[in-house]
Amino acid sequence: MTVVPRIAVCPGSFDPVTLGHVDVVRRAATLFDEVVVGIGINAAKTPLLSASERSALFASAVDDLPGVRVELVPGLLADFCTRVGASAIVKGLRGGADFDAESPMALMNRHLAGIETVFVIGDPALAHVSSSMVRDVARHGGAIDDLVPAGVADAVRSRLHGTVKEVP
Amino acid sequence: MTVVPRIAVCPGSFDPVTLGHVDVVRRAATLFDEVVVGIGINAAKTPLLSASERSALFASAVDDLPGVRVELVPGLLADFCTRVGASAIVKGLRGGADFDAESPMALMNRHLAGIETVFVIGDPALAHVSSSMVRDVARHGGAIDDLVPAGVADAVRSRLHGTVKEVP
Amino acid sequence: MTVVPRIAVCPGSFDPVTLGHVDVVRRAATLFDEVVVGIGINAAKTPLLSASERSALFASAVDDLPGVRVELVPGLLADFCTRVGASAIVKGLRGGADFDAESPMALMNRHLAGIETVFVIGDPALAHVSSSMVRDVARHGGAIDDLVPAGVADAVRSRLHGTVKEVP
Amino acid sequence: MTVVPRIAVCPGSFDPVTLGHVDVVRRAATLFDEVVVGIGINAAKTPLLSASERSALFASAVDDLPGVRVELVPGLLADFCTRVGASAIVKGLRGGADFDAESPMALMNRHLAGIETVFVIGDPALAHVSSSMVRDVARHGGAIDDLVPAGVADAVRSRLHGTVKEVP
Amino acid sequence: MTVVPRIAVCPGSFDPVTLGHVDVVRRAATLFDEVVVGIGINAAKTPLLSASERSALFASAVDDLPGVRVELVPGLLADFCTRVGASAIVKGLRGGADFDAESPMALMNRHLAGIETVFVIGDPALAHVSSSMVRDVARHGGAIDDLVPAGVADAVRSRLHGTVKEVP
Amino acid sequence: MTVVPRIAVCPGSFDPVTLGHVDVVRRAATLFDEVVVGIGINAAKTPLLSASERSALFASAVDDLPGVRVELVPGLLADFCTRVGASAIVKGLRGGADFDAESPMALMNRHLAGIETVFVIGDPALAHVSSSMVRDVARHGGAIDDLVPAGVADAVRSRLHGTVKEVP
Repeated sequence: MTVVPRIAVCPGSFDPVTLGHVDVVRRAATLFDEVVVGIGINAAKTPLLSASERSALFASAVDDLPGVRVELVPGLLADFCTRVGASAIVKGLRGGADFDAESPMALMNRHLAGIETVFVIGDPALAHVSSSMVRDVARHGGAIDDLVPAGVADAVRSRLHGTVKEVP
Repeated sequence: MTVVPRIAVCPGSFDPVTLGHVDVVRRAATLFDEVVVGIGINAAKTPLLSASERSALFASAVDDLPGVRVELVPGLLADFCTRVGASAIVKGLRGGADFDAESPMALMNRHLAGIETVFVIGDPALAHVSSSMVRDVARHGGAIDDLVPAGVADAVRSRLHGTVKEVP
Repeated sequence: MTVVPRIAVCPGSFDPVTLGHVDVVRRAATLFDEVVVGIGINAAKTPLLSASERSALFASAVDDLPGVRVELVPGLLADFCTRVGASAIVKGLRGGADFDAESPMALMNRHLAGIETVFVIGDPALAHVSSSMVRDVARHGGAIDDLVPAGVADAVRSRLHGTVKEVP
Repeated sequence: MTVVPRIAVCPGSFDPVTLGHVDVVRRAATLFDEVVVGIGINAAKTPLLSASERSALFASAVDDLPGVRVELVPGLLADFCTRVGASAIVKGLRGGADFDAESPMALMNRHLAGIETVFVIGDPALAHVSSSMVRDVARHGGAIDDLVPAGVADAVRSRLHGTVKEVP
Repeated sequence: MTVVPRIAVCPGSFDPVTLGHVDVVRRAATLFDEVVVGIGINAAKTPLLSASERSALFASAVDDLPGVRVELVPGLLADFCTRVGASAIVKGLRGGADFDAESPMALMNRHLAGIETVFVIGDPALAHVSSSMVRDVARHGGAIDDLVPAGVADAVRSRLHGTVKEVP
Repeated sequence: MTVVPRIAVCPGSFDPVTLGHVDVVRRAATLFDEVVVGIGINAAKTPLLSASERSALFASAVDDLPGVRVELVPGLLADFCTRVGASAIVKGLRGGADFDAESPMALMNRHLAGIETVFVIGDPALAHVSSSMVRDVARHGGAIDDLVPAGVADAVRSRLHGTVKEVP
């Protein structure tokens, strides 16, 4: 039997990357030979961090994981998956509502590029962690250091408050 | 890079196998190098078809798919996955409620054997097809021939009504 | 424009009929010219009340509603709908989980007989009322008189406890 | 029995109309004598296409359907339903999450104008098709021609990219 | 046994307060000795009514309830709960989708301040009432007087239309 | 202000008690002055463990918690709550589907006895733990020792397999 390398894409805006995202990428890395983290560039929204900042922070968070790399997704996700030769998109789910929200996108990517989306369950101990929650806590002055990989909290605080000092 | 074969298990009672199950196994076969269909033997329930009948019908339905085989799961699914060297369990989902029902089992298998469950979305055109629905339609005399692989409708009718003649 | 009478079927086991069922039938009667309440006969389950009792109790509860009648459904619901010339099945929903549970049946009836299922929202003030809940309360000696149409509470108590006296 | 014509309203922003919307209107047209597609005018949001464009595109998509017409809804949907004499609002659902999102609106319209909302299940083969998904795919340069009625893809591309040429 | 007073916080933007919010606060007041309504100040959103207006309207709506007071929440909700000595946050739920939306916030507050969130079911007869729905109905000229406490409808109309006259 | 003791009931069959149940009771004990664990006696089902065994195992698991006691619920839960003077029923939720399943019961208890049900979120790290899952794992020979309080695994194994020896 000839075994071809299996490539998966983990897409998102990652504004910023959280421990939850890294957890999902680690699970994907046990299932596929290569994992490409695809940083979405959405012209319609104004992110907190620039695409290159988001990319650098995610790359730093997974640099101990062989077979994982980070790339920008300039256009359609389906086109990106075709270009990198991915056989699957991997998404983390926290509950049934997440699935209902993700399902049309997964079916659209199947329609556009014949690519499957596979869903994994993130670590339940991180069920409260999402980019929007992290931004919200940080915006109100709360500590986010134990919700994100090293370096991310400083980047978020610097952008929000113009300082890298930790909130006491 | 050394690439190891990826093995997945598709578990279920498959009483009987439907076109929906075959659809999920076909998707799993595009994601993994080997797929083992695991036929559950649950002493607590009385199935319509015996484990060996369910196994033979599923095997016949996937005999065109290289890398897919059918086995009985005599005890705990987590133990079975460890024994066959699987890196993942694959389940099909039809909606958020399916996910909420599957999620505790997936987390339990992660707890028991460190095995991930990955969820794929079945073909939406088969969203009405499930073993219990098929049994129910057949029990009330409805035609199930376009819901199941070849040979299954006869087996179900034979068991329910003692005849293999198709309902007119 | 020629206007044909619109016929809908409200199916269920109605074991027993509740105020929630009557509420849904009343709403269906404002949407369709004729409504046929279809009492399911499911050989696989042992109901609390016989099919003829369930039928008589429902008929009594809707005898003020013109255009509504009650019939037994001896086989497949899809066949019954075709026989009575129904253009729709009407079901009441209380939440998203109800929808997810009903959806495969609705799609199966579309597949089997080309019949649509339309969902209406029951009166939220009756969200706690279901046949199984009514049976459960009655079994533990609770009062169900304000959950069901006149006559039903006596029938249920009589069957459960061999007496028609109201629980004090 | 005197049979009155049954009128239903299918409301939405339809920015743009998709094959999914047309599918729901076709189902509504089998259940009601007249169907009025109500194009919402929401001053608070900036649509991609103007109300008159959205109206013309939907009208073109259903001009083969007798008994279906398109109108603008300038104010409250409940008032519009009363004005056209509708007995029901018809909405398509794709899953339980859709129902939970629609349910408060349906109950509000019942409260405001005594009008029922009936939910039908759209064609599952179109479960990936929604206006927002179509806009998103088009914005990133993907092909939307097989997701929308004839003429719509050109209108969307023209608005987004200033050209009617199909993306190769 | 020494019994300490139990304090709960009912947080929200309350833009504007509705009968649904008051219903939840009344239920909270039967469960806890003191209830603090926490009016969120979110710099990122532009509310219809100012924080002090929202606060005054809620205070007026609950001035018959002993043990209930209204305060502004200037920063992080978790910090506010710690400051007022609350043992719980109380939220009303209308369905499973509400729970899935609230759950990450509840877990985040547990993470940040060790505070529990307890969910109660609002009066189902108010399931159609929410601030966004009330704003939407008012914006389109509908009557909201029976959806909100006394005085609120005038405040909303005044802000939206520059007049306190009731819509006829 | 006079502060009355707040009493809550945590109801269930607890067949057997799990670490998830104990987690919910511990949370309830931080919210209420007294917590009564109510062991349901349901004549219609055959439990694995007898009511007195279930009661003794739960009592043993919470004997370090002041203010928590265990009682049998011989009839209707609503009557039991009235008898012990409870102001609330406390239930743990793991997801939206759990809420949708619990909601009718909560509304029924409000209807029958005016008692509120408050929902708390269990420890997400225990999301895979339920009585039925524990029974299922044990029945197939899996280890359940880290899913249940001390002594419970032996009781379950003894009942299922006639031995208290741990599965190797």
